[in-house]
Amino acid sequence: MPHFEIQYSRNLDARTDIAALCRVITDELVDCGLFPLGGIRVRAIACDTFVVADGDRRNAYLDMVLRIGAGRGPQDKKTAGDAIFSAVCNHLGALFEDPHFALSFEVREIDPQLSWKRNSIHARLQQSPGK
Amino acid sequence: MPHFEIQYSRNLDARTDIAALCRVITDELVDCGLFPLGGIRVRAIACDTFVVADGDRRNAYLDMVLRIGAGRGPQDKKTAGDAIFSAVCNHLGALFEDPHFALSFEVREIDPQLSWKRNSIHARLQQSPGK
Amino acid sequence: MPHFEIQYSRNLDARTDIAALCRVITDELVDCGLFPLGGIRVRAIACDTFVVADGDRRNAYLDMVLRIGAGRGPQDKKTAGDAIFSAVCNHLGALFEDPHFALSFEVREIDPQLSWKRNSIHARLQQSPGK
Repeated sequence: MPHFEIQYSRNLDARTDIAALCRVITDELVDCGLFPLGGIRVRAIACDTFVVADGDRRNAYLDMVLRIGAGRGPQDKKTAGDAIFSAVCNHLGALFEDPHFALSFEVREIDPQLSWKRNSIHARLQQSPGK
Repeated sequence: MPHFEIQYSRNLDARTDIAALCRVITDELVDCGLFPLGGIRVRAIACDTFVVADGDRRNAYLDMVLRIGAGRGPQDKKTAGDAIFSAVCNHLGALFEDPHFALSFEVREIDPQLSWKRNSIHARLQQSPGK
Repeated sequence: MPHFEIQYSRNLDARTDIAALCRVITDELVDCGLFPLGGIRVRAIACDTFVVADGDRRNAYLDMVLRIGAGRGPQDKKTAGDAIFSAVCNHLGALFEDPHFALSFEVREIDPQLSWKRNSIHARLQQSPGK
């Protein structure tokens, strides 16, 4: 944990840099202090087949879901979500100047009783003198 | 909101028109009267790597998840879900004539405390004289 | 049901066989005895755009979500999840020898009140003399 999944309409590839957005989000996840660096997984899936709102082909969406482990308090989750959403809005700001863009973000907790994980990155990062 | 995500096995591309299905679903989401037009985002993701049931390569699946904002009553959600599923079954009817197709649909609510959104489409649609 | 979705970083395609992993998982879903064969849908989506942990391009992730119908007991779910995760770890074992791999697995129940399904595979499998 955490898992950060972006789904977006393919027509955004010509209008913004999704890989850069993934880096912006990673930085926010690190900076909020709630998550271990070694557990962060941010990724984006472009959708080729979509209908947004009235079906205008200029319409575009970017939908983000953050799945986190249980145990953080409601205020911590709200504060982290606010910071991430704000950073994303800032990064994508120009898209809102046209009347064809919808952004959304949801945070979900993973049931700790039905969660399994194994990770070989944590140990490397803890050993790294730069971290 | 709402978000309507389809995942399906790539072998369906030769048997049905997924883009047309997205339009059928959009129409149902509009017609049920529970959602603002400007918030509708229907999309489909084809999966190239899959195993369905006994692994017969003719087997295919189409799995739909609708994520909606909180606040609709249980009966409204059931009625809307019934209408959407019925329209999808109707559109895909021929697929059920072969013993190799599995269709599924799930509706999920988004926690309003952990949800963020920003949308430049609503304002345009409200101004449009045709709407 | 059940739905088993894998998301993974594209750089794994050169290091492991994801289609074979789907078959391993299908076998575990069958063997655990909780699910009808005709309802099993295992699939994988490769993500081309991702940042894992410190952004090292050798970092990779594989994230699995199993969605099941309601009605199984907590111990059955835990036992089945343990068996699946163990089989996946065994299949992917070599990936953990490098300090760049994160594996995760989550089981989620589908709300039976907001679930619809239709399936033409079950009848064929029940008729098959070999099953």
